Amino acid sequence: MSSASDRAMMRHALGLARRGLGNVWPNPAVGCVIVKDGRVVGRGWTQPGGRPHAEAMALAQAGPLAAGAEAYVTLEPCAHHGRTPPCAEALVRAGIVRVVSALGDPDPRVAGRGHAMLEAAGIAVLQGVMAEEAARLQQGFLCRVVQGRPMVTLKLASTLDGRIATASGQSRWITGAQARRRVHAMRLAHDGVLVGAGTVRADDPMLDVRGFGAVRQPLRIVAARKGIAPESRLVRSARQSPLWVLHGAQMSETQRTDLEVAGARCLEVETGSGGEGIAPGAMMARLAAEGLTRVFCEGGGQLAASLLGAGCVDRMAGFVAGKIIGAEGRAGIGPMGLGDLGAAPGFVLAHVERCGEDVLAQWDRAPG
Amino acid sequence: MSSASDRAMMRHALGLARRGLGNVWPNPAVGCVIVKDGRVVGRGWTQPGGRPHAEAMALAQAGPLAAGAEAYVTLEPCAHHGRTPPCAEALVRAGIVRVVSALGDPDPRVAGRGHAMLEAAGIAVLQGVMAEEAARLQQGFLCRVVQGRPMVTLKLASTLDGRIATASGQSRWITGAQARRRVHAMRLAHDGVLVGAGTVRADDPMLDVRGFGAVRQPLRIVAARKGIAPESRLVRSARQSPLWVLHGAQMSETQRTDLEVAGARCLEVETGSGGEGIAPGAMMARLAAEGLTRVFCEGGGQLAASLLGAGCVDRMAGFVAGKIIGAEGRAGIGPMGLGDLGAAPGFVLAHVERCGEDVLAQWDRAPG
Repeated sequence: MSSASDRAMMRHALGLARRGLGNVWPNPAVGCVIVKDGRVVGRGWTQPGGRPHAEAMALAQAGPLAAGAEAYVTLEPCAHHGRTPPCAEALVRAGIVRVVSALGDPDPRVAGRGHAMLEAAGIAVLQGVMAEEAARLQQGFLCRVVQGRPMVTLKLASTLDGRIATASGQSRWITGAQARRRVHAMRLAHDGVLVGAGTVRADDPMLDVRGFGAVRQPLRIVAARKGIAPESRLVRSARQSPLWVLHGAQMSETQRTDLEVAGARCLEVETGSGGEGIAPGAMMARLAAEGLTRVFCEGGGQLAASLLGAGCVDRMAGFVAGKIIGAEGRAGIGPMGLGDLGAAPGFVLAHVERCGEDVLAQWDRAPG
Repeated sequence: MSSASDRAMMRHALGLARRGLGNVWPNPAVGCVIVKDGRVVGRGWTQPGGRPHAEAMALAQAGPLAAGAEAYVTLEPCAHHGRTPPCAEALVRAGIVRVVSALGDPDPRVAGRGHAMLEAAGIAVLQGVMAEEAARLQQGFLCRVVQGRPMVTLKLASTLDGRIATASGQSRWITGAQARRRVHAMRLAHDGVLVGAGTVRADDPMLDVRGFGAVRQPLRIVAARKGIAPESRLVRSARQSPLWVLHGAQMSETQRTDLEVAGARCLEVETGSGGEGIAPGAMMARLAAEGLTRVFCEGGGQLAASLLGAGCVDRMAGFVAGKIIGAEGRAGIGPMGLGDLGAAPGFVLAHVERCGEDVLAQWDRAPG
């Protein structure tokens, strides 16, 4: 049984864990709080690049106060020797007497062994406190480990009638400054930002994060069967900010050389049957194998439709601007080939708010 | 100078005025509160059909207590003799000593004469209290009198990607039960519900109000160059619930006879150059001439685009459901023929909320 104070401490740990989102892949973003006699004596979260772990940071902060203290962790402590000794062992050695955890770690190297190691050392372990919130926060990591693909958030910024550009391609700016800033914050909370080749041709975007001081830029990823032009801004900035090009066997060797010389990394992935699409399943499996846990897809319509159709979109961030473009405008989501309304991908409203002059609605994939 | 208590009383009067919306055309929906020694002794609002007026109802309720009392009215009291003596005269005769009003009445038969009549009788008059709120509430009436057209609210109920039906026309149900109930409440607060001929063919709607007990049904209006089929549910129910068909010279005499025999009223209006459209300006002028102040348009895409293009849409009620249909689906707004993004009709977010499983965002036409 978890008490209100257990839940309050776990909420604190979840807030710390959130700081790591987008910054710690391939590791999970974990939070840890050490409590002695009702006072917080140590706080930790997974550090950039995934190490040190949250527990190590919190224990270091607590120092000798950790002896006889309780630890709140948003994910089961690791039990395997990697570059550092396992966190479960560190908690035991520090003299922690009770561990409250939100979720078991499905990583086969952990999978209950962390909790077991603690209990074997005589530590009281309470599991499952605020499990739902923790699973939502750590969804990217869980998705990678359990389903072998990263969690995908699809951004859609459209007019009231679902258009993302005029017929002639004019799209700057549909949404307002505050929505654009919010998009940058969302990029920052993901490991990588993904767009299709059409978006690169149409918008020549940078996909970087501005306005948040000196931050680690998210990985920029383009899905482009035949690669993208070396003159694009993404390629020209590949030395400053990492760029991956997911391409098919169709890409020429010259193209590959051009991209690699510019500093981009080229990853060949199976292509789908139609058009210029990379097969969504193969693309997601490759990104997960590379360690990505959270991907932010910003279109275009064809890539978005292909990910939606393959059931790879976990969340939608829908910005709506108070403009009407009309049916000739470009659609935010491409053709889906749906037979029946019942087959339409469904989402459950998580949150809706005003974002400057626009609406921002966040949706989670409907269960089942 | 208005005091906080003046504003509080006016807010009360505005709440009363709201009860008349959709129910009092061609008259404005007015609210009136009579206050004696700080106590409310009479409350009135425009009654169904437009009479009695709010002031008459409030004065009747106050009875002899009106002598020496103050009156709060959301619109300048009328000054002309119609079927009943003017309200300004009734306020004088009842012994009211101070009148607080929100707005002058632009109706040329009033236009300041109401306030002048009160002042001439020695009554203290304070104008412009909560004028902005009152203008918003009485926007339909002001629009009819000043611009010669009713206020138009356009409803758009679409998927996350702006679609209102699958390619094959399947559209039941995109939004959830709570959103559909909300649409019925919105119909009830408008004088008439307007759709195009395509919507009648595709959906065969009733456009009535259900779930609110015995209410006066809003007028149902179809814009259809050549009329609509006598087998449609709208025509078959025209004896129970009024139906107007706005048609062009293209409608045949047989068609007119069929519709009129079924109980529909046929109004010939100028048609536009292209397709099956009725010219939006002519249509709105005709509806205003018939006395309508608030029209709720529920599509389809072609009619919506034509009203938007003509600058006749004052408000948008945008419901968004958590589904994705894809680019083959039917667009909520038809072709607009926009050259430039700067020419796109713009709206300002008034309010956003969760409505059951859907999002409801309400937008007002952007100024200028």
